[in-house]
Amino acid sequence: MAKGRGHLMDALPELDALMAAMPPAGAMRIRSVGADADTLRLHAPLAANLNDKGCAFGGSLASIMTLASWGWVVHRLAQAGQVADVFVADSQLRYLAPLYDDLAAEARLREDQDWPGILRCLAERGRARASLVACVRDAAGTPVATMEARYALIRPAAAATA
Amino acid sequence: MAKGRGHLMDALPELDALMAAMPPAGAMRIRSVGADADTLRLHAPLAANLNDKGCAFGGSLASIMTLASWGWVVHRLAQAGQVADVFVADSQLRYLAPLYDDLAAEARLREDQDWPGILRCLAERGRARASLVACVRDAAGTPVATMEARYALIRPAAAATA
Repeated sequence: MAKGRGHLMDALPELDALMAAMPPAGAMRIRSVGADADTLRLHAPLAANLNDKGCAFGGSLASIMTLASWGWVVHRLAQAGQVADVFVADSQLRYLAPLYDDLAAEARLREDQDWPGILRCLAERGRARASLVACVRDAAGTPVATMEARYALIRPAAAATA
Repeated sequence: MAKGRGHLMDALPELDALMAAMPPAGAMRIRSVGADADTLRLHAPLAANLNDKGCAFGGSLASIMTLASWGWVVHRLAQAGQVADVFVADSQLRYLAPLYDDLAAEARLREDQDWPGILRCLAERGRARASLVACVRDAAGTPVATMEARYALIRPAAAATA
């Protein structure tokens, strides 16, 4: 399991503060576990995310993967010293198996994406697009849901004209 | 607006009870508004579904569309006197515009689908698939998010062997 590799950072307080301030993310008790060079990891307890069948609600799986990918971009923008609103534009989800464990999500930039190029585009044009991939794993590490999604990065008008 | 057509039924108490028992749906305050011959409508207040930008969280839009489509199938199964667990299998979502209003979702069977055929398949084989389409509209009635999703209908083992 990646968790055991020992090179994860601690949870990300700024990201956790942003998520805790969103009522639905707060209710789902979604929080960061950490990030390494490429991956952001989030966690949420099953109890706060149950459906009618006693397993994880599909909307909660969609939410934590959407937030993990969004959080990856937000965290990397902060590291790069850039400011932008980050909106999900579209997503494709696959639900592979019911999940009876806590929700462990991870997200990363899609392999064909060029993060320095995305940052350049944002700096020059005030907006950019990024494609992310995310999954949720069960306690044994097996993926139970996957998502691929595009995000729009848009510099606030104030920042764009500053 | 469809709401004004006057042939909507009242909210659906059984469906609302199922959704209220799911912690994430309860926290998002998702409830039924009604159903007509083809469409199920759900509602959720913006305040319970805000993101960091003061508009509706993408995960909440995904959740209410996932529940509206799931609820359509659950409601129609009940009307047909059939019992099945209903799982979302995959979905494609498009986020068209930020939503600063309450969430008004609707779902219906995709046009090429044959509901009597789906019910026959479920009765004969114990499982079936159904494709649904859903959207969320703003207060002016303009779609701000759309979803197409496939659901698996699976008769519980007890019912299948009864």
